[in-house]
Amino acid sequence: MASLLDLPPLAGDLVRVEDALRRAVETADPFLSEVAGHLIAAGGKRLRPALALTAAYAASPDASSKQAPEAAVMGGVSVELVHLGSLYHDDVMDEALTRRGVESVNARWGNLVAILAGDFLLARASEIAAMLGTEVAGLLAATIADLCEGQVRELTKVFDIGRTEEAYLEAIGGKTAALMSASCRIGALVCGLPRASVDALTAYGRRLGMVFQIVDDVLDVVCTDEQLGKPAGNDLVTGVYTLPVIRAMADGGASELQGLLGAPLDEDTMNRARQVVRSNGAIGAALGVASEYACEAERALEILDQNTGVDALRSLPRALVSGVPI
Amino acid sequence: MASLLDLPPLAGDLVRVEDALRRAVETADPFLSEVAGHLIAAGGKRLRPALALTAAYAASPDASSKQAPEAAVMGGVSVELVHLGSLYHDDVMDEALTRRGVESVNARWGNLVAILAGDFLLARASEIAAMLGTEVAGLLAATIADLCEGQVRELTKVFDIGRTEEAYLEAIGGKTAALMSASCRIGALVCGLPRASVDALTAYGRRLGMVFQIVDDVLDVVCTDEQLGKPAGNDLVTGVYTLPVIRAMADGGASELQGLLGAPLDEDTMNRARQVVRSNGAIGAALGVASEYACEAERALEILDQNTGVDALRSLPRALVSGVPI
Repeated sequence: MASLLDLPPLAGDLVRVEDALRRAVETADPFLSEVAGHLIAAGGKRLRPALALTAAYAASPDASSKQAPEAAVMGGVSVELVHLGSLYHDDVMDEALTRRGVESVNARWGNLVAILAGDFLLARASEIAAMLGTEVAGLLAATIADLCEGQVRELTKVFDIGRTEEAYLEAIGGKTAALMSASCRIGALVCGLPRASVDALTAYGRRLGMVFQIVDDVLDVVCTDEQLGKPAGNDLVTGVYTLPVIRAMADGGASELQGLLGAPLDEDTMNRARQVVRSNGAIGAALGVASEYACEAERALEILDQNTGVDALRSLPRALVSGVPI
Repeated sequence: MASLLDLPPLAGDLVRVEDALRRAVETADPFLSEVAGHLIAAGGKRLRPALALTAAYAASPDASSKQAPEAAVMGGVSVELVHLGSLYHDDVMDEALTRRGVESVNARWGNLVAILAGDFLLARASEIAAMLGTEVAGLLAATIADLCEGQVRELTKVFDIGRTEEAYLEAIGGKTAALMSASCRIGALVCGLPRASVDALTAYGRRLGMVFQIVDDVLDVVCTDEQLGKPAGNDLVTGVYTLPVIRAMADGGASELQGLLGAPLDEDTMNRARQVVRSNGAIGAALGVASEYACEAERALEILDQNTGVDALRSLPRALVSGVPI
């Protein structure tokens, strides 16, 4: 995110996103407005809108000073609403109590309200996408479908110690990379970039999403609770075996890990499992895969004319990988 | 439904809807395809696609023989997918065990899968709507938002014996009438009807939806389990106080009903409450409100050129009211 935030127009454009997000959840029913606005008010990095905006800057020869067009702001709003809607449903599924430092919607108002409000956020995202044209509307809808498919793929492999690297990569491709890819594509589409450049930014976003999720999964293994700002090791507790664990299984840690994993585990077992994964080279191997995606992401941008927007995008994937505290 | 089914092309066009519904839930993940197709395979009246198709027939001078255009079929598919997606989420919220004579998705695969598959169905509905143009895409998204708002309005009044008729009508306007209205509007829009006719069919659909829900709510009070094909009195059990109950409260049954309602109740209390509602004229009063909406629905069609499609639509609302076994 740091490399994006160096862009002069981004801070101002993210304020426009924030305003539009608040307007997007206004409804005739004050209770629904409150619930739908709950996580917006809690803040967040707004990475996906930042990607849409930066893709829009990439379309402009003078990216260092110009505000993004309104359509790029609204494109950013639509992808953030999809992200938020999916978080509402994730938190119901995970029975999460907190999110972004505040009570989760399900914890505060119950599962029924959280499911409906999540649906509402997704619907508002689709309404905004429809204003941006049929291509954006179709893309956003297909992206939500990909997101569901990725999450179902993850869900069906929970506590499965035989989960393959291929199954993992397919799942995160839907769960995370599809929306980051769509964020970049929408920013590029609404600015009327040539088709080849739109496709390049789409490919970039997908690879960035893969880097983002692999790094996120590594952080869950290597960080302390304090570093992470939430309980570390949660993936192991919930039975989501991610790339570092899959690599550790393959690279010699198999026999001990097999004994530790495959079922719900207590904190000691979880910590021992994290130790095994950290000690046998699996972290480096997982970050190696992330680095490959980062290289591919950079390469995808080669056909674009250089400007500060493109530069910011180019440096982001590698910054994510090198930001892991190991 | 009977008056629609008399239309010669409808049975054939509903087969096309059925085929397209099955194709719409195919995905690369066989498990997700199975779950998303579960309720489609269980069948259903397909009232909303039938409305979209009949609105399309209304656009044709020769409605008695001509197949609907493909866009009307896909419009019908999109509204049915919205209906199905909302049923997946409803069943999670109601902890329902069965639906349409088969195990509910949540009962069979759990809440997590049911939430994700519901999201997936809504996303596929939006994808199809995007193919039909920005107006249809925007309308469908706004309709899903209305649906959520209607359900939230209902939810916030659960077990509230002070629920007003106004609050009830607002809730069912979102929960039921919005999607029936959108079904008619989409069928009319994709056939290129003049704007005034599109608006007339939209107004018709909204009023039909009000009739449909009021009748449904009356049936829950007056029918036996056998007549209904599911446990009667369920609204009272779940604390959803509908028009007949609200009218009974206002019309003299207040004192006894207030003692019976306002909290979860056992079967005897539920049956006593139904008896009170049935005995004091509240059923007739509720059906009177439904009849008013039926008249308004008929009147909305007056500006359309007459044909068999329009005739079928015109007779439907009144047939719903007169079909109540009292």
